[in-house]
Amino acid sequence: MRLLEERIIKDGLVLSDEVLKVDSFLNHQIDVRLLAEMAKEWKRRFSSDQVNKILTIEASGIAIACIAAEIFDCPLVFAKKALTRNIAGAFFQTSVTSFTHETVYEVIVSKRFLGPDDRVLIIDDFLANGAALTGLVKLVKQAGATLVGCGIAIEKSFQKGGDRLRKEGIRIESLARIRSMNQDSGIEFEH
Amino acid sequence: MRLLEERIIKDGLVLSDEVLKVDSFLNHQIDVRLLAEMAKEWKRRFSSDQVNKILTIEASGIAIACIAAEIFDCPLVFAKKALTRNIAGAFFQTSVTSFTHETVYEVIVSKRFLGPDDRVLIIDDFLANGAALTGLVKLVKQAGATLVGCGIAIEKSFQKGGDRLRKEGIRIESLARIRSMNQDSGIEFEH
Repeated sequence: MRLLEERIIKDGLVLSDEVLKVDSFLNHQIDVRLLAEMAKEWKRRFSSDQVNKILTIEASGIAIACIAAEIFDCPLVFAKKALTRNIAGAFFQTSVTSFTHETVYEVIVSKRFLGPDDRVLIIDDFLANGAALTGLVKLVKQAGATLVGCGIAIEKSFQKGGDRLRKEGIRIESLARIRSMNQDSGIEFEH
Repeated sequence: MRLLEERIIKDGLVLSDEVLKVDSFLNHQIDVRLLAEMAKEWKRRFSSDQVNKILTIEASGIAIACIAAEIFDCPLVFAKKALTRNIAGAFFQTSVTSFTHETVYEVIVSKRFLGPDDRVLIIDDFLANGAALTGLVKLVKQAGATLVGCGIAIEKSFQKGGDRLRKEGIRIESLARIRSMNQDSGIEFEH
């Protein structure tokens, strides 16, 4: 999506070959107009999939997913991060290992808000190793819901999460796919 | 706001005299249509205040604040929770004592996203003891920004946060104000 790529070039900060900072428009300060355009693009790509629920994970996915839920005219559910392994049986639950922070956390969704009638589009801001996304996919399966696909803002396609999940048959629509990045030579996108 | 009060009566769960669960429409599963109506109401109340930035705190405030930012047509900034006391000098920072969880955490906002030109409307889902809101107000002051006021979804007016902040001269617009609640007798609103 050209609009997002141009914004990444203009306002993104390449901190290393692996770390891109987009906190001025995507995950600390948020440009809601940009988010609306991104949501419309996902709506275009998933127009015939009868999405009736958007799922994301706190915290940085919530804003993007919220505007997407508006455009798809359906409820948003965000999975919560929990530290304890034993939540009451009222939740779907799985463990996520964060490569970035070298921690393991639990991800939970109330059983009241995800079930067999749901056609779920997962939305998140980043896809790199795919740890969080894999956790969300597991929650959808636990619920017996239908996973329509995943809408990602920025995929670092030089990391392995996207390829691995696509090989499992999961549809992933990333609006900007970064093939490589470097503080000197800048960002190269896949098209 | 009658629409929100009716929804609280219909779908809110009174767990005790102090705890109201609204996770089916406000802070786990989210009804974005309701959020849009709430945002329009805040826009009506703050119509002449030239708001140019919405500020909230992760995670449960983000969805409400995001739709508000759309209606006010301005950027959203969400304060992040951090565990460490010493963040680099690039952030405004204050401590918040959570009564609910009996913990102290740091709240931070990058200095790049809040400054003297900003006319800030703080948005949050709940106001009870006012700990989080007080932290956000402090960040606005540190930045030298103008605090226009606070838009709250649900205020538990039997707790002291709202009164205390209003006495400090802060304008607070809560869309539903709960005077008392009880598992048997239900919820009584202030009007």
